[in-house]
Amino acid sequence: MSRRRTRRRQRQADVPETAVSPIAQPIHNLPVYDLVDDPQLDRIHQASMQILSEIGIAFLEEESQAILKEHGVEVRDDIAYFDPALIEEYVAKAPGQFTQLARNPERNIIIGGKHICFAPVYGPPYVYDIDRGRREATLADFQNFVKLAYLSPYIHHSGGTIVEPTDEPVDTRHLEMIFSHIKYSDKPFMGGVISGEQAADCVTMAEILFGVDEIRQNPALLSLINISSPRRLDDRMLDALKVYTRARQAVIITPFVLSGAMSPVSVAGTVAQLNAEVLAGITLAQMINPGTPVVYGAFQTTIDLQSGAPVFGGPESQLALYLNAQLARRYGLPFRSGGMFTGSKITDAQGGYESIMSMLPAVMGRVNFILHAAGWLEGGLAAGYEKFVLDCELLGMYHKYLQGVDFSDDGLALDAIRAVEPGGHHLGTEHTMRHFRTAFYRAELFDYNSAEQWQDEGALTAAQRANKKYKQLLKSYQPPPLDPTIEESLREFIAKRKKEIGAA
Amino acid sequence: MSRRRTRRRQRQADVPETAVSPIAQPIHNLPVYDLVDDPQLDRIHQASMQILSEIGIAFLEEESQAILKEHGVEVRDDIAYFDPALIEEYVAKAPGQFTQLARNPERNIIIGGKHICFAPVYGPPYVYDIDRGRREATLADFQNFVKLAYLSPYIHHSGGTIVEPTDEPVDTRHLEMIFSHIKYSDKPFMGGVISGEQAADCVTMAEILFGVDEIRQNPALLSLINISSPRRLDDRMLDALKVYTRARQAVIITPFVLSGAMSPVSVAGTVAQLNAEVLAGITLAQMINPGTPVVYGAFQTTIDLQSGAPVFGGPESQLALYLNAQLARRYGLPFRSGGMFTGSKITDAQGGYESIMSMLPAVMGRVNFILHAAGWLEGGLAAGYEKFVLDCELLGMYHKYLQGVDFSDDGLALDAIRAVEPGGHHLGTEHTMRHFRTAFYRAELFDYNSAEQWQDEGALTAAQRANKKYKQLLKSYQPPPLDPTIEESLREFIAKRKKEIGAA
Repeated sequence: MSRRRTRRRQRQADVPETAVSPIAQPIHNLPVYDLVDDPQLDRIHQASMQILSEIGIAFLEEESQAILKEHGVEVRDDIAYFDPALIEEYVAKAPGQFTQLARNPERNIIIGGKHICFAPVYGPPYVYDIDRGRREATLADFQNFVKLAYLSPYIHHSGGTIVEPTDEPVDTRHLEMIFSHIKYSDKPFMGGVISGEQAADCVTMAEILFGVDEIRQNPALLSLINISSPRRLDDRMLDALKVYTRARQAVIITPFVLSGAMSPVSVAGTVAQLNAEVLAGITLAQMINPGTPVVYGAFQTTIDLQSGAPVFGGPESQLALYLNAQLARRYGLPFRSGGMFTGSKITDAQGGYESIMSMLPAVMGRVNFILHAAGWLEGGLAAGYEKFVLDCELLGMYHKYLQGVDFSDDGLALDAIRAVEPGGHHLGTEHTMRHFRTAFYRAELFDYNSAEQWQDEGALTAAQRANKKYKQLLKSYQPPPLDPTIEESLREFIAKRKKEIGAA
Repeated sequence: MSRRRTRRRQRQADVPETAVSPIAQPIHNLPVYDLVDDPQLDRIHQASMQILSEIGIAFLEEESQAILKEHGVEVRDDIAYFDPALIEEYVAKAPGQFTQLARNPERNIIIGGKHICFAPVYGPPYVYDIDRGRREATLADFQNFVKLAYLSPYIHHSGGTIVEPTDEPVDTRHLEMIFSHIKYSDKPFMGGVISGEQAADCVTMAEILFGVDEIRQNPALLSLINISSPRRLDDRMLDALKVYTRARQAVIITPFVLSGAMSPVSVAGTVAQLNAEVLAGITLAQMINPGTPVVYGAFQTTIDLQSGAPVFGGPESQLALYLNAQLARRYGLPFRSGGMFTGSKITDAQGGYESIMSMLPAVMGRVNFILHAAGWLEGGLAAGYEKFVLDCELLGMYHKYLQGVDFSDDGLALDAIRAVEPGGHHLGTEHTMRHFRTAFYRAELFDYNSAEQWQDEGALTAAQRANKKYKQLLKSYQPPPLDPTIEESLREFIAKRKKEIGAA
């Protein structure tokens, strides 16, 4: 333990200033958008309580069932029926916000309250770029996206399975992913959730990096536990949940809901079911380890009822997001939802329209942890290189937006208004000169030139400009220094685990 | 008069059902987003009152100055200094909402209150389509856009100068534009504002179409009076304002503000100035004709302080829009702002991102009249054919969004939730089947197919799909029947005016 502590202190002292601008997490101090009043919200809450107590939630794992029973939950034929009072009691044990550790402590993040955290896309088996088109993702792609996330001042988190490294064996993939997050970034990252065994490996690697005691004080891992809606938690996710909550690592309990398939087509019904599912998962987590950090997650969208394909950025999902955000606030829980979603295969106009249609409500609704905040394409099946860097431009805008309005005398600027004659201009006023650099967010990848100039410069699409940009970024990348003894320990652990897993 | 009334009644009886779906204006019954509290809003109001009383607004037209003086305003060196009490008194005379007539009465629109109206882009001298690129707009383009706006169920208004018909002489262009709105659409439209004389022509044409008395009851024209910020109303706009308000036709008083150029770089200062300018214009209108319908307008965006070019969709403009919307509500006035703004020259990802960044806040902030809701490209210098039809898809989404959430038992859908087993699906439930057609808004031009299917179908961008769509629409277009005697009267008037204007 003390050896690790010494290591850590030493590492921090050695770390030189990185190339990454230290822009902090935005604080959402603006009024939050509430879609419904308290009686309407209560109607959904009550419907969820009815689902939890009468209709029930399936937990397809024996030990979880035993834990639920021990704590007074009725379980019959794998289905748990919860007393609403029990739900309220255990949900109340979860902290309203918590800090997730980064190996660079300046990049620790707060999840919950008024804090917003943007994290990259999660899960795509494919990648897309203009030059090579769509192809299976590799570990090299994974590392590229870790680097791009590290380089963006507007991404606060290295994410999890940014892409699936399909060239790595499934059983040991998680080891290389966690190592890549640690090696190529110094931002916080997520643990694997495919099985309890893999989750345990991720916890061990976090212990090597941060120290066993340190990660019991503040979690070093934040992991995504998906509920297989409708009303079902599977054994592998439950195994991972048990490992993480026992190690006091944070989990995001997230029903994955396509309305019309995994839930009713109606917004209220979808949210009532989703809410019941989240609360069931959080209750189990708090029974396992009271006070362990959890996040209320909601991944919800609709399907195209003609083809069954998922649809992103639609109006029904915006409504559902606002309702879920209000419910999470009602329970005093950190909330995860939103993202730059699109069904488009490429970074075209559809990609832009749909991304903001799903992302802006997440910002307005004060979502605390926004996964998929950059790089999402093709309904989540592909991570786009160009999309990633373009999405980051928008994340910069949200940082500026969340600063709100300056109501000081300087903000009201009556002296400047007085100084400029009718029909004159403010370009050279003392006020303008003083605020020149910070007045407006400037999106580097958006073109503001005249049509003629844009033509002269090659008539590039936004995606073509982004193509150049991501290559420049990867070329400029410098890894944040990592203590070689920690790197060695991690490598040793990975080698040992690969041998064990191979033998099994 | 009675001849006209008979005509009109007859015309209405003759009109067959059109091909255009009669989707009504959306009602914004959701909670409106208020960015600031009352004391903060009052700080802006007070700053505006200081601008109006101490710094003053220039009215560069003699009769307007005389009217102001008659009503107790102090005018020195073309600059009017308003007593705040006088402002409050006259602003209070403006109606909170009003109906604008359409020649098909089913398409009359309400402006103000909780009603939302979407209108096409206004003013571009260029058009863009994928096949022919960027070129000067013609009357044929103007008519094409009138047809596209007519064909969209999500556009409630035919707009004004959708594009500048540059192949028509400047002095008589307004006659052909108004005639095209009347001939090719039956939705409400806007009047010309280049001069008092042109405004008078527009009023006469509206009188021919609707009847002299009819348009005194409810306005047939809604016209855009731009204020030349900072703090200046020019003679030509004032002439048009006088004509319209005397004829009791509605005007939108809109400062055109690029922060950093026409106003301070700060949001609060920009809004304080803009608010003062609008209130000055509205006060004059109410002095001319108390109770005449007016709209509080705010066209505000920022500039790129490196190049001086306008920037659209930025975070500062969103904040300003919310503040202006709150101020308009404070004064009880209908509000105009927002639009599908972008600086992009084409319908690419930048076009999509920026459009929603500026449009969604307009919907959330309950803007009553959203000009530029479809077709805007290149900072307003070009109208895009592909952009127009894609923007309309989003307008459809906003219609659905504004319906809000169904909190009935059927909306909560507990029976459906109960009927589906854990891990099952809702695709075939009775509840899903019953709501199949209306559950989700479906954007025809967005691709939800698999990557493989999308490849097989030509790997089209959203803009390429939109290119096909707008051509199909124009091909399918059928004009709404127009009473031949009215058409003849209009044509006679236009011929007479062209002769007079040519002789002058």
